[in-house]
Amino acid sequence: MPPTFLEKGARDQYQALLEKYDTWLFDCDGVLWNGDRPVDGAKEVLEMLRRKNKLIVFVTNNATKSRKNYKKKFDKLGIDAAVDEIFGSAYAAAVYISSVMKLPKDKKVYVIGMSGIEEELREEGIAFIGGTDPADNTLEPFSLADFTLDPSVAVVLCGLDTSINYTKLSKGFQYLTRNEGCVFLATNEDSTYPDSSGLLPGAGSVSAPLRFALGRDPLSTGKPSKTMLDCVRAKHDFDPTRTIMVGDRLNTDILFGQEGGVSTLLVLTGITKLAEVTGPNASDIVPEYVSESVGDLAVAEG
Amino acid sequence: MPPTFLEKGARDQYQALLEKYDTWLFDCDGVLWNGDRPVDGAKEVLEMLRRKNKLIVFVTNNATKSRKNYKKKFDKLGIDAAVDEIFGSAYAAAVYISSVMKLPKDKKVYVIGMSGIEEELREEGIAFIGGTDPADNTLEPFSLADFTLDPSVAVVLCGLDTSINYTKLSKGFQYLTRNEGCVFLATNEDSTYPDSSGLLPGAGSVSAPLRFALGRDPLSTGKPSKTMLDCVRAKHDFDPTRTIMVGDRLNTDILFGQEGGVSTLLVLTGITKLAEVTGPNASDIVPEYVSESVGDLAVAEG
Repeated sequence: MPPTFLEKGARDQYQALLEKYDTWLFDCDGVLWNGDRPVDGAKEVLEMLRRKNKLIVFVTNNATKSRKNYKKKFDKLGIDAAVDEIFGSAYAAAVYISSVMKLPKDKKVYVIGMSGIEEELREEGIAFIGGTDPADNTLEPFSLADFTLDPSVAVVLCGLDTSINYTKLSKGFQYLTRNEGCVFLATNEDSTYPDSSGLLPGAGSVSAPLRFALGRDPLSTGKPSKTMLDCVRAKHDFDPTRTIMVGDRLNTDILFGQEGGVSTLLVLTGITKLAEVTGPNASDIVPEYVSESVGDLAVAEG
Repeated sequence: MPPTFLEKGARDQYQALLEKYDTWLFDCDGVLWNGDRPVDGAKEVLEMLRRKNKLIVFVTNNATKSRKNYKKKFDKLGIDAAVDEIFGSAYAAAVYISSVMKLPKDKKVYVIGMSGIEEELREEGIAFIGGTDPADNTLEPFSLADFTLDPSVAVVLCGLDTSINYTKLSKGFQYLTRNEGCVFLATNEDSTYPDSSGLLPGAGSVSAPLRFALGRDPLSTGKPSKTMLDCVRAKHDFDPTRTIMVGDRLNTDILFGQEGGVSTLLVLTGITKLAEVTGPNASDIVPEYVSESVGDLAVAEG
């Protein structure tokens, strides 16, 4: 079924949408802001949804920040949010390792990623090495002869890491090939992410070297993975038939909503362009609704 | 057809092989040496082939060294070799850019790789940026806002780069997405490479982030690409029916020989294990001959 295009300023269309859904799941980058630039009207629309007693949940694949630190981003942009409304892919990874894998206390995670992952692992009581450890954040040559394999590493977890380097990749590769049963996890597989000035390689690009060297894919805990939705549902009870996922990416946000059995609204302020949802080169992933911007929802109230 | 397994010490088998082939193409890593450790008998077998007036060519995907520098590796291990017997994937990339692409003189290459690529580009008179430039060899955060796109970059060339980092990946991504028609080249796509102490991520893992971020594959100039064989044939005339490629990797060396219409000999001193050529999990790429080690050829003389 083709998507319903919501027209800018069409109050009746947006009012109908608001009546239909009690729970609103929002992606953030590309929906509420781009880099450090808020999307026009996003803040006001969230305030309107709160006035109408909607349940609001922020579901982000950003794994560079913990939920606590991610809240600071909302604060900085003047957008109201509570930590327990925020679900990040680093948190989903930590919950997966502790609750689904039930990693024994004597086992460790090798982290290719930034402080957000470390904070979420720490909160779940999971031991880890790598990450922001200065010893691994180096461009000095990596010598396999000088490397000591830690046999307790049972998971290699990759997220966006702007300090990605050959030492981290080499260590991750050693654990995944030499520690039997070592699990290859990724916080998310976004190919790119939107900076305020444009696109940069995303978390999927950081796990890509290991994926290529190993010839196998990581298990991802971020959108569109079901793991992420399980995390949200463990904390917030909602009726999927009265829930809508708002996002800017077809292969993460919209697919995530569809796999979770909720409605979907694509906004065009981020990654996806109109040509990907209509016309001859349209994607197979079809959102239920398309709107130019989340700010356009503001017209519903008046 | 299943491969012919050459038995250790079976003089008649090895003598027949020597009589059959005039031109011997050798992979190096995993065949003649592993890291800094020569394969037993390799040196002596090469000397024997020279005594028998065989044409010897070294065909390597190693792009971290120029041919001149790669010769130093032979010298260090006491193995006789001439620079014009050596064909590296960095050289093949430089020849491809100058002779096939015919890159205009006012255009540049952005290099993600080491000095070997730079030296080969320089020898072909190709302008480049990136590579070993200290400005790109950093773990400092990359800021897109501070980045100035060089519109003359028409190729991004990736090879093994043990200083791979987010700045290089981000710049390569900008050129490939923002400079129209910018060509994505890789010296080779080896998933791993053998260090003397084990396996490390290979050149294919270094281009993998861009491959993932772009959603498309680079054109590779190394084995098994035909570009590499074209390079060899431009310098050395040989009869494919009397030529054999000796290598340790099915998906590079053996496939390269097969695509080039020459015979193939797999040795088991490198990447490929016996279980990959025989039994239920055997690869679809079947070499013509299999020998435990290149050193086993020594028995042919005596």
